[in-house]
Amino acid sequence: MSTTDPMMKNYPLSYQAVDKETEAESHYILSQHNSNGYTVGAPPKKRLTEEFSHTFREFFFHDDPLYQYKDKSKIRQCWLGLQNFFPILEWGRRYNLKMFKGDLIAGLTIASLCIPQDIGYAKLANVDPRYGLYTSFVPPLIYALMGSSRDVAIGPVAVVSLLLAEFLRREFDPTKNKEDYLRLAFTATFFAGLTQSILGFLRLGFIVEYLSHAAIVGFTAGAAITIGLQQLKGLLGITKFTTHTDIVSVLHAVFSNAHHGWNWQTMLMGTVFLAYLLTTKYVALKNPKIFWLAASAPLISVIVSTFFVYITRADKDGVKIVGHITKGVNPPSLDLIYWSGPHLKKGIKIGVIAGFVGLTESIAIGRTFAAIKDYQLDGNKEMLASGVMNIAGSFTSCIVATGSFSRSAVNFMSGCHTTVPNIVMALIVLLTLAVITPLFKYTPNAIISAIIINAVIGLVDIGAAYKIYKVDKMDFLACMGSFLGVVFKSVEVGLLISVTLSLAKILLQITRPKIFVLGNLPRTTTFRNIEQYPEAIRIPGILVIKVDSAIYFANATYIREKILRWLRDEEDLNRHHGLARTQHLILEMSAVTDIDTSGVHELEELFKILKRLYIQLELVNPGPLVMDKLLSANFIDLLREEHLFVTVGDTVAHCFAKSKDQEEA
Amino acid sequence: MSTTDPMMKNYPLSYQAVDKETEAESHYILSQHNSNGYTVGAPPKKRLTEEFSHTFREFFFHDDPLYQYKDKSKIRQCWLGLQNFFPILEWGRRYNLKMFKGDLIAGLTIASLCIPQDIGYAKLANVDPRYGLYTSFVPPLIYALMGSSRDVAIGPVAVVSLLLAEFLRREFDPTKNKEDYLRLAFTATFFAGLTQSILGFLRLGFIVEYLSHAAIVGFTAGAAITIGLQQLKGLLGITKFTTHTDIVSVLHAVFSNAHHGWNWQTMLMGTVFLAYLLTTKYVALKNPKIFWLAASAPLISVIVSTFFVYITRADKDGVKIVGHITKGVNPPSLDLIYWSGPHLKKGIKIGVIAGFVGLTESIAIGRTFAAIKDYQLDGNKEMLASGVMNIAGSFTSCIVATGSFSRSAVNFMSGCHTTVPNIVMALIVLLTLAVITPLFKYTPNAIISAIIINAVIGLVDIGAAYKIYKVDKMDFLACMGSFLGVVFKSVEVGLLISVTLSLAKILLQITRPKIFVLGNLPRTTTFRNIEQYPEAIRIPGILVIKVDSAIYFANATYIREKILRWLRDEEDLNRHHGLARTQHLILEMSAVTDIDTSGVHELEELFKILKRLYIQLELVNPGPLVMDKLLSANFIDLLREEHLFVTVGDTVAHCFAKSKDQEEA
Repeated sequence: MSTTDPMMKNYPLSYQAVDKETEAESHYILSQHNSNGYTVGAPPKKRLTEEFSHTFREFFFHDDPLYQYKDKSKIRQCWLGLQNFFPILEWGRRYNLKMFKGDLIAGLTIASLCIPQDIGYAKLANVDPRYGLYTSFVPPLIYALMGSSRDVAIGPVAVVSLLLAEFLRREFDPTKNKEDYLRLAFTATFFAGLTQSILGFLRLGFIVEYLSHAAIVGFTAGAAITIGLQQLKGLLGITKFTTHTDIVSVLHAVFSNAHHGWNWQTMLMGTVFLAYLLTTKYVALKNPKIFWLAASAPLISVIVSTFFVYITRADKDGVKIVGHITKGVNPPSLDLIYWSGPHLKKGIKIGVIAGFVGLTESIAIGRTFAAIKDYQLDGNKEMLASGVMNIAGSFTSCIVATGSFSRSAVNFMSGCHTTVPNIVMALIVLLTLAVITPLFKYTPNAIISAIIINAVIGLVDIGAAYKIYKVDKMDFLACMGSFLGVVFKSVEVGLLISVTLSLAKILLQITRPKIFVLGNLPRTTTFRNIEQYPEAIRIPGILVIKVDSAIYFANATYIREKILRWLRDEEDLNRHHGLARTQHLILEMSAVTDIDTSGVHELEELFKILKRLYIQLELVNPGPLVMDKLLSANFIDLLREEHLFVTVGDTVAHCFAKSKDQEEA
Repeated sequence: MSTTDPMMKNYPLSYQAVDKETEAESHYILSQHNSNGYTVGAPPKKRLTEEFSHTFREFFFHDDPLYQYKDKSKIRQCWLGLQNFFPILEWGRRYNLKMFKGDLIAGLTIASLCIPQDIGYAKLANVDPRYGLYTSFVPPLIYALMGSSRDVAIGPVAVVSLLLAEFLRREFDPTKNKEDYLRLAFTATFFAGLTQSILGFLRLGFIVEYLSHAAIVGFTAGAAITIGLQQLKGLLGITKFTTHTDIVSVLHAVFSNAHHGWNWQTMLMGTVFLAYLLTTKYVALKNPKIFWLAASAPLISVIVSTFFVYITRADKDGVKIVGHITKGVNPPSLDLIYWSGPHLKKGIKIGVIAGFVGLTESIAIGRTFAAIKDYQLDGNKEMLASGVMNIAGSFTSCIVATGSFSRSAVNFMSGCHTTVPNIVMALIVLLTLAVITPLFKYTPNAIISAIIINAVIGLVDIGAAYKIYKVDKMDFLACMGSFLGVVFKSVEVGLLISVTLSLAKILLQITRPKIFVLGNLPRTTTFRNIEQYPEAIRIPGILVIKVDSAIYFANATYIREKILRWLRDEEDLNRHHGLARTQHLILEMSAVTDIDTSGVHELEELFKILKRLYIQLELVNPGPLVMDKLLSANFIDLLREEHLFVTVGDTVAHCFAKSKDQEEA
C-alpha cells in the first residue's frame, strides 16, 4: 500500500506516516505490535473466597470505616468506637457558651414552630394531637445523642403522617376503632424503627439511594399538594369531608360543601392568618436578616387566634377548635404494640414503608445542610440513630419521627451549631405537655391548617423540577410520574411509580448501552466518537467500535446485533463510495467493566460471524475483570493473543502493517 | 521545574521530555492545550420530542426492522411485510424434494418421541393424556406457518407442565374439580398466548433477556430434577404420593411407601426400559451416526411394553397403565375459558407466568440451534408466533405449548431443514387421535415415566454450570440459587430467586461501579489501570482517576466518596514518601455514558471540596450526552472550559506546563 493509493487520500496524517518509513520513527511509534512491547495484563487469579470477600467489602464497607482506627491504641480505638455511635461524645468536649447561645435561640424557634405543626400532623395521621407532641419529645432527645447531622430538627412530619393515615385507615376506622388504630400506629412505628436500625447496622444505606433525586422531588411535591388539599377541611370549616386523598375526590368534597358546609368565620380567620404567614415568609426569603419575622409568625398566629376565639367564643358560631388536650408526658405503649396476630404482619408492612420514606426524607435533608456547612454525613450512622429513636418512640406513644424539612431550615437559619436545639425543643415540648396543653383548647383548627399549608408549600420545589427538566428529560418524566401519581391517586401509587421509574431508568441504561464508532483525530493517534468530534475521520477498511457498558445477559444480544448493524451500514457506505470492504473490526473494550457468561457467548458468536465474513476481530484494552473472564472462558485462545492490543492506535498500525504484508506477498 | 529535581526521577520519559524543549517537538505534541487544538464537542441541542423519539426508537426498533423495505416498490414491501409474519412464504418457494426428505424423516422421528411424552406431560400437568396429544396437533401447525426457527419442535413441555400443575392445583383439586381445573388451564393457556403476542407485537422481547443465562441453567436443571422425582411415582408403581414437588416431601413419600407401596413388576419393567433408553442415548452421544438408535428407543419401548402388558395382563398384578384415551380430534374449548368472574384474574396470573417461562425456554432453544446452523432468530417474531399458536391452542383444548428441548435436539439431529417436521408431526398426531389412541390403553405408566426421565435428564447441564463457575462466581451463585429454590421449595420460589438474583446483579453493578487510578505507560502518552499494568507509573502531584459507569442517583454519592478516598490514600502515600502534595485531579470520563441531576450535583460537590483542598479538577473527554448535561447544568461554567481536555496525555502536559509557569513566576 503506497501513499499514492487513491483510498489513502483521506487517511489521517500519522497513519500515512507509517508508510514513509524514514519519518515513522520521528512520530509516535506505530508499527510495533503493542505499544513499546506492553501487553494487556490479566490480574492474578483470585480464589473464590477472596473474590467474594472483595466484593462484599466493596459493597458494604467501601467507605473504609476502620480507617480512623488505624495505628491507634486499644483504649483510643474503644473511645473512637463509642464516639462512632454517640457523636455527642466527640463534639461535646468542644462545646462552649457561644455555641450554646446559638443553639438555644434555634431550639426555642423550632419549638415554637413544632408545637402547632405537631398538632396538625397528628390530626393528619388521624390520632389525637397529644401524640404529635409526644413525638416531639422522646425521639429528638435520642437523636441529639446519636445523630450526626447538626441541622436536622426531629419530630413528626407531614409526608410520613399522610402515609401512615393512608395505610392505617385501610385496616381500622380511625374514629370507630380508635384504640386498634393507635395500636397499629405504634406497631408500624416500631417496625419503621427496626427497619431503619437494621439498614444502618447492616450498612445497607445504599438501598435508600435507589430512589432517584427526581422521583423524590416529584413525590414530595405531590405529597405537599395532597397535604395542602387536606387542610382545606380545616381552613374552610367543612364538616363532611372525604377520606380519599386524591385531588379529584378532595375538590369534589370541597365544592359539594360550598353552599352550606363552609363556615365564613373560619374562612376569614384562616385566610387572614395564612396571608400573614405567607407574607412574612416571602419577605424573609427576600431579606434573610429578618427571617425571625417568619419564624415567629406561627407562634404569634396561634396566640392571637386562640385569644380571639376565647374572647369571642367563636367556637359557638361553628369555628372548629383543637379542643381539650390531655396533660402529662408520654405514657408507655410497649404493651400496645401488636407482637402477634394478624395485625402484626400489617404493622410490619406499614412500618417498613414508613421507615424507608422517613429515611429518604431525613437523609436528603441532612445531606443538603451538610453540603452547605461542609461536613460529611454518614448515611448508615444516620439510619441507626433514626431507627433507635423510632423504636424508643414506639415504646413511649410516639408515631414515626423523622427530620422535618421546614423546621430544619429554620433551625439552620437560626444559627444552630450542634444537635442541642433538638434537646431544647424536647424540653419545651415537655414543659408544654406537663403544664400548658389546656391553653391550646381554643386554638382554631383553621390556624393549624394555615400553619401546615405554610410549612409544606416549601416542599414544592419548582426550581429543582425545572433544573431536572433542563438537564435530563427522562428524569423529568420520573419526577412528573411520581407527582401525578400522588396527586391523582394516592401516596402508595406515587411511591410505586417513583420506585418503578427509578429502577426502570437503571435497567434501561444497562439494556441499551451506548455503542459508537470511533474515528481518528487527524495528526494524532487518538480515536474519538465520530458523532461528538466532527473532525474525527473513519479509516476505510477498519471499523473501530467502542462499547460503553458491562456486557451482561440483559444486553449481550443487543450489543452483538448493534455492532453487526454498524458493520452493515459501513459496508453499505463502502459499496456506495466504491471503497474496499471492511477487513478489521476493532472493539475498544476499555469501558467494558465486566462480562458474564452470556456476554462471552455473544462475543464468541460475533467472532464466528465476522470470521465467515473474512473480517478479523481485534480487542483493545479489556479491563482486568474482563481479561480474567475471557481467559477462563478460553476466548483469548480462540481469538489468539496477537489480536489483543493496548491502544486503538497500536491496533490500527498493526492492521496497516498486515495489509501491507499481504500486498507485498 | 527542572530535570534535576529529585521528584522527577520517576517521571515517565515522555513527560521529562516536555522540559527539554528541543526534544519536545520530536515527541508527541504535549505542551499544547487540547491536542492539536481539538476541543471536547457537545452535540447540537435536541428538542424534547427528538430526544424521546430517539430513545424510543433505540429501545424498541434498535434492530431497524424496516431496513429490508428500503428502496423497494410498494408491492414488494407488502410482500416482504407478509413474509415477515409468515416466514413460510419466504422459504416455501425454495422448498424442494431433498429438503422434504430430511424434513419427513425428522417429522416422523419427533412424532414417535412426542406421543409418549405428550401423555407423560399431560399427566404431569394433571390433565387427561388426550390434552397432551391435542397440544401436539394445533400449535405445531400454526408455528410451521409463522415460526422462524428451523429446528424447534413444538408441543407440551416438561417445565411448563410442572409449572401449570403447581399453580392450577392451588385453585382447584385436579381430581375432585376436574372440569374447573381444565377450564382454568385453558384460561391460563389463552393468557399465556396473549402475553406472548403482546410482547412480540410491542417489540418487548428484551424483557425475556432480564432472566440471566445462569439463572435459566439453574432453574431448568432444578425443574428437571423435580420432574424426574415426580416420575418415581410411575416408575416404582406407588399409589399414595405427595402433591408437593420439593425433594424432601417427594423422597419422604417414596421411602414411606417402600414396604407395601412399591410394585416389583412395575419397578422391574421401568428399570429395564430406563436402562435401555439411557444406554442408547449414551451410545448415540458417543457416536452421532447411530443416533437413530436413541431416537427410536422410546417408540420401541412403548410398543414392546404395551404388547407385553397386554399379553401378560400384568395390570391385574398392580402394574399401572395409561388406560382408555378417548378417540377424536381437538374439541373446541372457547366457551370453557373463564372470560369473567374471580377465576379470570387467577387465569391471567398463571398465564402470564407460564407465557414468560415458555418464551424463555423456546427462545433459548431456538437461539442455540440458530447459532449452530448460522442464521438469525428474531425474538419478537418468535414471540408473536408463540402467542398466536397458544391463543389458537386455548380455543382447541390445548395446554400451553412451547419449544421442547429434547424433541428439538432430535429434530436437529434427524436433519430437519424447515418447520415442515412440525407439520408432519402434527399429522401423525392427528392420525393417532383419530384412529389408534385405544392402542395406548395397556401402555404401562412406568414406561411413560422412564421416557420422561430420559427426556429431562438432558436439561441438567452440568457442563454449562461448570463453565459458569469457572467464568463468573456471582453468576454461579444465581445459578445455584435458582436450582436449590426449585428443588427444595417450588417452581415459583425458584423463579422468584432467578428473577431477583438476575436483577440484583444489574443493580449491584450500577451501584458499585469500577473506579480506578490510571498510570502512565513509560515512553508513551497512554494511561492505563495501574492494577492491571504493573509497568504503569503514577505521576506525583497528579492523580488520574477513571470512572467506568454512568453517574446516576444510585451511585453518585459512592463515586464521589470513592474518588476522595483514592485522594486520601494518595496523600497518605505522598506524606509517607515525603513527596509534594497532589495538585491536580484528572477525571477520565470517556466511559461515563450518562449523568443525571444527582450525578451533576455530586460532581459539583467534588469540585467544591477539591477547591478547598487547593486541588484543581480536570475533566477528560466526557461523552456527548454527558457534555450536553454538564452544559445545561452550568457545570462547565463552574469548572471553566480550560479544564476540559480530549486526552489524559494533553491534561498531564497542561498540568506540567502550569506548574512550570508557577515556578518561573
